[in-house]
Amino acid sequence: MIRTLALVLALGAALTAEAADKPTRIPDAALKTAAELRERASSDDTAWNFTEGLTTEIGARLAGGDNDQKARDWVAARFKALGFDKVWSEPVTYPKWVRRSESASLVSPYPHPLAVLALGYSPATPAGGIEAEVVAFASLDALKAAPDASVRGKIVYVGPRMHAKKNGEDYGIGSTVRVTGPALASTKGAAAFVLRSAGTDDNRTPHTGVTDFSNGAKPIPAAALSNPDADLLENVLKRGQPVTMKLALDCGIEGTYTGANVIGEVTGKGKPNEYFIMGGHLDSWDPGTGAIDDASGIAIAAGAAHLIAELPQRPRRSIRVVAFANEEAGLYGGKAYAAAHAREIAHAVLGSESDLGADRIWQITATVKPSARDAIGAIAEAIKPLGVEYDASAPGRGGSDLSAVHAVGMAAVSLHQDATRYFEWHHTANDTLDKIDPAQLRQNVAVYSVVAYLAAQADGDFGSGPNAFPADESE
Amino acid sequence: MIRTLALVLALGAALTAEAADKPTRIPDAALKTAAELRERASSDDTAWNFTEGLTTEIGARLAGGDNDQKARDWVAARFKALGFDKVWSEPVTYPKWVRRSESASLVSPYPHPLAVLALGYSPATPAGGIEAEVVAFASLDALKAAPDASVRGKIVYVGPRMHAKKNGEDYGIGSTVRVTGPALASTKGAAAFVLRSAGTDDNRTPHTGVTDFSNGAKPIPAAALSNPDADLLENVLKRGQPVTMKLALDCGIEGTYTGANVIGEVTGKGKPNEYFIMGGHLDSWDPGTGAIDDASGIAIAAGAAHLIAELPQRPRRSIRVVAFANEEAGLYGGKAYAAAHAREIAHAVLGSESDLGADRIWQITATVKPSARDAIGAIAEAIKPLGVEYDASAPGRGGSDLSAVHAVGMAAVSLHQDATRYFEWHHTANDTLDKIDPAQLRQNVAVYSVVAYLAAQADGDFGSGPNAFPADESE
Repeated sequence: MIRTLALVLALGAALTAEAADKPTRIPDAALKTAAELRERASSDDTAWNFTEGLTTEIGARLAGGDNDQKARDWVAARFKALGFDKVWSEPVTYPKWVRRSESASLVSPYPHPLAVLALGYSPATPAGGIEAEVVAFASLDALKAAPDASVRGKIVYVGPRMHAKKNGEDYGIGSTVRVTGPALASTKGAAAFVLRSAGTDDNRTPHTGVTDFSNGAKPIPAAALSNPDADLLENVLKRGQPVTMKLALDCGIEGTYTGANVIGEVTGKGKPNEYFIMGGHLDSWDPGTGAIDDASGIAIAAGAAHLIAELPQRPRRSIRVVAFANEEAGLYGGKAYAAAHAREIAHAVLGSESDLGADRIWQITATVKPSARDAIGAIAEAIKPLGVEYDASAPGRGGSDLSAVHAVGMAAVSLHQDATRYFEWHHTANDTLDKIDPAQLRQNVAVYSVVAYLAAQADGDFGSGPNAFPADESE
Repeated sequence: MIRTLALVLALGAALTAEAADKPTRIPDAALKTAAELRERASSDDTAWNFTEGLTTEIGARLAGGDNDQKARDWVAARFKALGFDKVWSEPVTYPKWVRRSESASLVSPYPHPLAVLALGYSPATPAGGIEAEVVAFASLDALKAAPDASVRGKIVYVGPRMHAKKNGEDYGIGSTVRVTGPALASTKGAAAFVLRSAGTDDNRTPHTGVTDFSNGAKPIPAAALSNPDADLLENVLKRGQPVTMKLALDCGIEGTYTGANVIGEVTGKGKPNEYFIMGGHLDSWDPGTGAIDDASGIAIAAGAAHLIAELPQRPRRSIRVVAFANEEAGLYGGKAYAAAHAREIAHAVLGSESDLGADRIWQITATVKPSARDAIGAIAEAIKPLGVEYDASAPGRGGSDLSAVHAVGMAAVSLHQDATRYFEWHHTANDTLDKIDPAQLRQNVAVYSVVAYLAAQADGDFGSGPNAFPADESE
């Protein structure tokens, strides 16, 4: 038995190696159908109706919160209504963080109320709040370099400013402060941490988001000020007098919660076990209704899959649409999917998640095996009429949850939305339906439908396999 | 004595009639100095520092609130620091309205929190709030036409949408709903009134503002929803099921308060009792720090007067800068000034208040006696290099509080700011310093300094006198 098995495994490896050398091809007939999908997407409002429905009939979807189950039920019902062949859920368990209330104010030298939001995983302050002197740093490096004595018992403020960019690169600045700043301040003895919101706007709508104490630092209360409030604080600090702030947060972790990834499938007729995977995340932060982050992501994928489902015949491979659970607080949905499907990850031939709003997709990048690079080029050609550029030299790790699936071996493509406006509203009360432009949303659906369909019809694969893509820097 | 007095009065009337016929002129020397003021204003940051200081060191200035006295003290001290020759206050008494808290939510069919602000003069709801069905109307006319039975006991929603315009004309739509809607709904038996914010933005920052029950209608709780919340409500209503809202407002009138207009003067050396009057209002709504509405208005006037005070010699007439009390809840400061100065209103030779933010002034209009029209033309020529157009056919009633002074006989000029952005932030938490563009603020100071100086130097007057300008439709 053992020798036989070894022979089969060796034969399999040889076949795989041979397949890897033969270039993956996109059939001409598939390209013709893709052109039809592109055309039909331009007048299809499935994604708009999905986004409008989820944000209107459910709204805010904090992972583990009151709307979590309702949102899963809503999405499963909509997937069925859209004619998907199979709809199912896969459980995802994570710590349940709850927000009850928050407030902040400058106490002296000039009293002002401050617009503030607690960060995900922030613990509560003592009842009644913390009142302490503010010590400000322009950057995390400046905080690192400060003597602990200058920080101990104080409220640390770190305030670099993000600027709007098409590729959203400044989010690296803001999110690093948010994710790592509180733990760093904690190790230096700070009483609490506040940051300038990781956002590009000038609205009194702070940007929440997750922070991280998994390095073992004692969790301290952590919150984001809106940009105008951060400006005000800095202008007060400039006057050189001691500045006292009061911060009262009621929030924290309440055990664990088991939610689910909700999955809809248009089942392929040739290789039904292989699939293209796309989607977005079902959870949102709670201040808004989670329209751009990320109802639209699921909606784009659902709209694209629906167009494919309406073709005269099913595609060769299956199309999976996933509404991932709890992306916001640590890619829990993506990690759960990766863990559950790691062994047959070769079946996930290619994947892409939409999690950067719904403005126009302007670029495609991919991380695939070398012999599939020409096929990606052919796919890129098919979406070029939609205004999408191909950067063959940059990686594409699939985005958000699917980057966790890519990490276990799924070939991935990234379809980059124009992020110029995204960080004005991301993680704020302003993440609402009005921020979605229906015309740009349709362009997203067109791009996703073409990419999904061509991947499903490809002759050959894109290199997915257990640990096929060695760990590299995260996207 | 009586005959002698009659003779003097007759002679005075004759001289006045003669003066009225002689065209008012702007001396050439004054035009030369005005060109220097224009130039110096382009690099003067007095107005910026004033706005930054008032919004940073005081902040929100609800009339009669905690910051009222502090703000008056701050302005008086700053006027003195700017070298004004006289600084004084004149009392203004008004009903004191207080805001303690507010919240709203959709209860069914889809629960959602709603971003809401109580309107000025709204009474409180019963403790615990009102929960009632929402009945929506597209306009006040539709509400008027509705049978009382369809409104009784319900929460009335009226939702026309404002669009951004350079001349801000859509504010007429929004403010009419806000000011008159609640009383109208009350007469029809409504339990409460909510409107779509009178604002052009898509932020979750509702626009508060005053409402009016002075027609005798029983005051009912009245509040503004942010535009995205109004969209959400309308999208829920479209589904055709009964919609229940909960509204909890804790606010109301608490007796009266006596504040003051704060006045600074650069005293003229030829006709010190005559003066050009300009300013803004010191109160603001409370959610923001009152930067564009209206710290910048006072700052522009103070900056302009400061430039004039720095000239080698004092102007012929005086320059008065007024920080008016409680403009927001009914032009109380302007009405008090008008009442206190009505008898010698001829001394107020011309006036203009800045209360439309601090973006570029694009137009000048005036309401003056016919024989001063050429002088206004000359003033308009002097600000033409700053990009200001003159519309000689349109009235100019001085704006806000000064329109109340115009109503008792002050000749007036209106210097119209570009209002395209103003109604995004007006009366919201977003009215903060970052909304002021320093370069456009300097253009405002340049315009005001030229207009103030030329009016102060004019040979002849502009027609101010008791009831000199018969009542016409308000600006």
